[in-house]
Amino acid sequence: MSNPPHFERHFSGGETVRDVVIGMSDGLTVPFALAAGLTGAIAASRLVLTAGLAEIAAGSIAMGLGGYLAARSDADHYAAEQKREEEEIVEKPHAERAEVAAIFRHYGLTDAQIAPILENFEKNEESWVDFMMRFELGLERPDPSRSRRAALTIGGAYAVGGIVPLAPYFFIADARAALPWSALCAVAALFAFGWAKGKATSGRPLRSALHTTLVGAIAAAAAYGLARLVS
Amino acid sequence: MSNPPHFERHFSGGETVRDVVIGMSDGLTVPFALAAGLTGAIAASRLVLTAGLAEIAAGSIAMGLGGYLAARSDADHYAAEQKREEEEIVEKPHAERAEVAAIFRHYGLTDAQIAPILENFEKNEESWVDFMMRFELGLERPDPSRSRRAALTIGGAYAVGGIVPLAPYFFIADARAALPWSALCAVAALFAFGWAKGKATSGRPLRSALHTTLVGAIAAAAAYGLARLVS
Repeated sequence: MSNPPHFERHFSGGETVRDVVIGMSDGLTVPFALAAGLTGAIAASRLVLTAGLAEIAAGSIAMGLGGYLAARSDADHYAAEQKREEEEIVEKPHAERAEVAAIFRHYGLTDAQIAPILENFEKNEESWVDFMMRFELGLERPDPSRSRRAALTIGGAYAVGGIVPLAPYFFIADARAALPWSALCAVAALFAFGWAKGKATSGRPLRSALHTTLVGAIAAAAAYGLARLVS
Repeated sequence: MSNPPHFERHFSGGETVRDVVIGMSDGLTVPFALAAGLTGAIAASRLVLTAGLAEIAAGSIAMGLGGYLAARSDADHYAAEQKREEEEIVEKPHAERAEVAAIFRHYGLTDAQIAPILENFEKNEESWVDFMMRFELGLERPDPSRSRRAALTIGGAYAVGGIVPLAPYFFIADARAALPWSALCAVAALFAFGWAKGKATSGRPLRSALHTTLVGAIAAAAAYGLARLVS
């Protein structure tokens, strides 16, 4: 039987856009905030850069593999729930019929209108399971190639986002002199990313740009304050 | 009108568990991996600790605020889509009727069975919008207090997870001597967290524990390798 039609989404660039957003939001924020924080405690750009790059490696792998495992676990979850629904329809058909009826009754159908729908499902159990997966559990059949793509997109976006605000530390040996340039790169990149994200998802680019930039600034300020405090 | 019944989820501890998992997965992995990476390049625990704490501050705020904004944007998205469905039902009722019919036809209902459903929706537009939100778009009405809770849970879990593997650097001045203890704390915490996560979600605790521990180890090894390379 064919897949059910995908849930339509009015504003969306699909899962890849979502994965880029997940990876880049943190990638643009955390390594920059870490580098800014360390600049409060360490004078040599080389050490700040070492920490920043180690963070990018750790963060992109942790987030990328995390995305891979989450997608795999979604797929396992779907398969397990499907098996369970298949069993329930055979073992507890009365309970499952009552669940279908409750769904339609909620939307105002009378029992007389619901009866032929139930009859129809009893004749086609595959259709019934399919219906329960989506209408009772709200689950969509996962795309089998999703997990690998999610890992690469999230991890790659984190790394790309993380490199941008670290670049000035490559070129300026004194970390304190590099920090303003790093902050400038970070703010510009956060603003542009927030704008693009807002365009793609909510249709409110300015608000999204300001939000994203603010999160980066608050995280960097907190990291800076904490690093000064303990050093 | 009452909210539609929530999508039932067979295995679930709800949104709070999900938020703890989001925050703690990265919190247990990234600060540890960063500290391990820096230990390849820096001998003083104090500096490693400074970097680790700055990372925890940056990471927990970036992820917490990110979770806050994501929840807020889900709520905005829901409201915008609802408005759009309300307009479409008034302005393009034929197209919307065709969409409802297509959904039910997919599950094997005949046009004669679909007709009373359509009639019923025409008499109750609120119910119709509700149905479209959930079954055409796959959206659930968001909980208005979710955004603040998401921020605190994700950020807090990140910080708690991050502190555990850093603890040995508090007590052992030589970073190279602290690293094995930090790794031990990290592996034990990752394993326990993965086990609990597996119990709560997939019902396969051992697999989840091994996955989670492996992600942490790979991220730490990559951060270590990169830090040695550039220092």
